[in-house]
Amino acid sequence: MVLMKERLIALFGAAPDEYLSGSEISRQLHVSRTAIWKHIQALKEDGYTFEASPRLGYKLLSVPDTLQPSDIASLLRTKTLGRTVHCYEEVDSTQNIAHRLVQAGAEEGTLIVAERQTTGRGRLGRHWHSPKGKGIYMSLVVKPDIPLHMTPHLTLLAAVALCRAIRRVVPEVSPGIKWPNDLLIDGKKISGILLESSAENENLQYIITGVGISCNLQKEDYPEELLPKATSLYMESGKRVDRAALIAEFLLQLEELFDLYMSQGFGPIRTLWEASAVTLGQSVRSSDPNGEYEGTAVGLNDWGGLVLKLADGTLKTIYSANARESGHM
Amino acid sequence: MVLMKERLIALFGAAPDEYLSGSEISRQLHVSRTAIWKHIQALKEDGYTFEASPRLGYKLLSVPDTLQPSDIASLLRTKTLGRTVHCYEEVDSTQNIAHRLVQAGAEEGTLIVAERQTTGRGRLGRHWHSPKGKGIYMSLVVKPDIPLHMTPHLTLLAAVALCRAIRRVVPEVSPGIKWPNDLLIDGKKISGILLESSAENENLQYIITGVGISCNLQKEDYPEELLPKATSLYMESGKRVDRAALIAEFLLQLEELFDLYMSQGFGPIRTLWEASAVTLGQSVRSSDPNGEYEGTAVGLNDWGGLVLKLADGTLKTIYSANARESGHM
Repeated sequence: MVLMKERLIALFGAAPDEYLSGSEISRQLHVSRTAIWKHIQALKEDGYTFEASPRLGYKLLSVPDTLQPSDIASLLRTKTLGRTVHCYEEVDSTQNIAHRLVQAGAEEGTLIVAERQTTGRGRLGRHWHSPKGKGIYMSLVVKPDIPLHMTPHLTLLAAVALCRAIRRVVPEVSPGIKWPNDLLIDGKKISGILLESSAENENLQYIITGVGISCNLQKEDYPEELLPKATSLYMESGKRVDRAALIAEFLLQLEELFDLYMSQGFGPIRTLWEASAVTLGQSVRSSDPNGEYEGTAVGLNDWGGLVLKLADGTLKTIYSANARESGHM
Repeated sequence: MVLMKERLIALFGAAPDEYLSGSEISRQLHVSRTAIWKHIQALKEDGYTFEASPRLGYKLLSVPDTLQPSDIASLLRTKTLGRTVHCYEEVDSTQNIAHRLVQAGAEEGTLIVAERQTTGRGRLGRHWHSPKGKGIYMSLVVKPDIPLHMTPHLTLLAAVALCRAIRRVVPEVSPGIKWPNDLLIDGKKISGILLESSAENENLQYIITGVGISCNLQKEDYPEELLPKATSLYMESGKRVDRAALIAEFLLQLEELFDLYMSQGFGPIRTLWEASAVTLGQSVRSSDPNGEYEGTAVGLNDWGGLVLKLADGTLKTIYSANARESGHM
């Protein structure tokens, strides 16, 4: 099967922008036209696109966009982040790979990218839909020299960095941040960020920043139940996204914002976060062991908690991302 | 070898408080007197103590103090902590076992205790000296419902709990806390606490609280180089410590202080910590990327950082336990 795929690709590669008829392919590869149709379908699943004409046959339109470390390296303008990149065809979860690499001594800034995740995960152990070659599924190892209690600032910083990177690479869209670090376009989720941190006493050991971005997914790539609340950069902009460019831009934004944070503290990050937030002004429900709360989100506190103004005018800060927006989310 | 040890123990068990001569043992077990001497040495290493008389032979004085889950359970007065106990003869590190158990779903309050650790670890990956049966080497799984940025409070809370537990069970000694959570008696280290925490974004997933306490170690149990800076409860009090009682008391103190923390916040914990601290008033050196600092420790800030008063009168808060006291430590 694999060999036949490669022979088909070679055949189309030798005749760029031309139609190859089913009978011509059949003659050259010594297989039936039904077998050819099956192999074409398999190639489509791998990300190849074809134009099919009953009269002329098949024309190869595009080869899959697979990420290579060299693609990212050629665009990278960072000092440290992403200077070591590991690309995988398929993994259970890039977070798991990153944890293993850290245990084995992976250095600051090591990036893990996969074309597909079988058990990609989001917040609270939720599944992250990761179809092959269509999204960015990556995990970044960082070992920031900050005390543990400041780690939540980085959760917000990462969202600001990704928001800015998307706006630069895909200027047609304007994502907003849903507290703490989901990105939405018109209320639909475009990406999720998960920071898994590990500490010894007050010393942060490392953070693995997992990022999932729906780049070139089309409507048919989503399960029916996700369509009302998920979208992709392609669906919103009408253009294919250069994933390597978006990764390189995100790493640059992240590094620059982290330098800003280290020199000026949380203040500027908070300002940037609030300027891009869609959560502020919205009604947010939350619960803790003492009961349920509902209030209007008015801002962040010094520790990245979301400040709610309750119906009686009192302020309450929530920290858990279990908070639910009232309404459709 | 093992079989011979068991036969020797059985022989002494059948003659309590009596001397058994070398020739008598030799006759009954059909081994040479040199072999008997070797087996007695091996038993001593396992924690058995003997009196040896050139004329009378050997008398068994005490069998090793091995911890059993039932010993701890019978003394336990907690609601949750330590309600599940796993005791091991020898492990690499109780922290490692605890991490594995958490991944496998271990519940809140699960306690891991070992008689011996081959690679017991303290802060910053330092080795923790863990001779067999002489200390308490334990790890506790907790999943407190607090935001990540409050975790450093628990580092200090654990030190207060252990300090109070030791004072109750061994009233002859009066340990003090060295920031953040080492316990000292007269400047010598008696125990260390290491909290390894894991978080997803601002949500704390779990903390593994590792505690090492030097209980019944004697001078000869220490490598020469540790003697100037380490001591044991036995060496300081002159009495053997009931390890199960100390574990049960620590868990009770920890649970009660945590309830206090959840109802009244960090204030009372800070007061208790400061009242037991040996660090306050001392000169402390610290370094960060911006340089070296030296100042007098004057208290804790709201986030558990140590506030130093520098020579020029300004205050500086340090968070990293890399801070070194000036002088002998």
